[in-house]
Amino acid sequence: MRITTVGLDADDTLWHNETLFRLTQNRFRALMADVAEAEELDERLAAIERRNLSLYGYGVKGFTLSLIETAMELTGGEPSGRVIADILAAGREMLAHPVEPLPGVEHALAELSQAYRLVLITKGDLLHQEQKLAASGLGDLFTAVEIVSEKDASTYARVFGRHGTGAAAAAMCGNSLRSDVLPALQAGAYAAHIPYPLTWAHEMADPPSGHPRFAELASIAELPEWLATLG
Amino acid sequence: MRITTVGLDADDTLWHNETLFRLTQNRFRALMADVAEAEELDERLAAIERRNLSLYGYGVKGFTLSLIETAMELTGGEPSGRVIADILAAGREMLAHPVEPLPGVEHALAELSQAYRLVLITKGDLLHQEQKLAASGLGDLFTAVEIVSEKDASTYARVFGRHGTGAAAAAMCGNSLRSDVLPALQAGAYAAHIPYPLTWAHEMADPPSGHPRFAELASIAELPEWLATLG
Repeated sequence: MRITTVGLDADDTLWHNETLFRLTQNRFRALMADVAEAEELDERLAAIERRNLSLYGYGVKGFTLSLIETAMELTGGEPSGRVIADILAAGREMLAHPVEPLPGVEHALAELSQAYRLVLITKGDLLHQEQKLAASGLGDLFTAVEIVSEKDASTYARVFGRHGTGAAAAAMCGNSLRSDVLPALQAGAYAAHIPYPLTWAHEMADPPSGHPRFAELASIAELPEWLATLG
Repeated sequence: MRITTVGLDADDTLWHNETLFRLTQNRFRALMADVAEAEELDERLAAIERRNLSLYGYGVKGFTLSLIETAMELTGGEPSGRVIADILAAGREMLAHPVEPLPGVEHALAELSQAYRLVLITKGDLLHQEQKLAASGLGDLFTAVEIVSEKDASTYARVFGRHGTGAAAAAMCGNSLRSDVLPALQAGAYAAHIPYPLTWAHEMADPPSGHPRFAELASIAELPEWLATLG
């Protein structure tokens, strides 16, 4: 079946994201250096993020609240005002951070948009994701934008049904095996994995090696050629 | 022109919302009673919310962060750990709060869904709004749900174009003149205002009295009858 629609993840596929979270986490480690070792801090933060995920969802605001909660736990409930101020500032800086497309993204999307409907499919804070897309200058290349609270098979079935000609005629492309690749394959779509050097622990999964509709690509620049082989 | 599509706001139209924010704000006042008068605290919080709106958008997570920032400002940057812990807890409680439809909502929506496509159109945190809709038990009555970062005329034109037969054949119904009524009228739709006893300062506006496509209703129970008069 001919591919009509290409879904693209945003964070760490079109632009840097996890790097910013890691930089903020490094800053948080430095801030808390006198009360906790880096390893203990990372473990505590990861546990708190996991615990809060069902209430906060994905995105910078929930991350900021989880950082504050981690600071509370690590200081016996009495963090210094400087720590709180610095976490709030770090959160605001992440939200206001300039957005620059990753290498090759603009060229690949411009080429793909000639042949396919492009749909941006991303998790995170609604307003922040819209703002990043606007700041990236890539908005006009997409036929549709779907900011979703969770990426599972039913999400992909719904989105490719609404904005394309169904999952069987669609390919999803992103850096997360867990969110972009596995559920898209499960929905009946093709899926390409383009790894980003960093992956949030929550997004880890094993690659579906040998799956007939799956490809591992080194860069988004390889996406047009792979899609062309699908007929 | 016959009305085919009815847009409904969610917070304070289908279920309580502002009341929860006010209750949390009262709790915050009590928590800060030894450092600030209620009036000063309210003013400071409102100013901080306004300042953060373009970064945080609408919803509980941004509100929680703004409460922490207000506590910082009012204590010279050194709030007690108890204050921070209580704000974090209040935010989590708001996110986990049970959702109960306002009186008359279920009956009115069940009736309306027989004759019109119902579209939920709401601002706020994506995940939280989805969770509230699921908890309300009203989800099946809607043909579509649009959680948006801002409600302006172009939002209504887009949503009624996508899920209905255009704004001219649609009516929007909600408690906010600023977000539900005025921009929907501007987009060419009909609009009904159903006041809620409390309105967030940011949502205040003058009613468009005498506008031929506008109605002020005392309750959502009056909505079916008003829509029927539109032909």
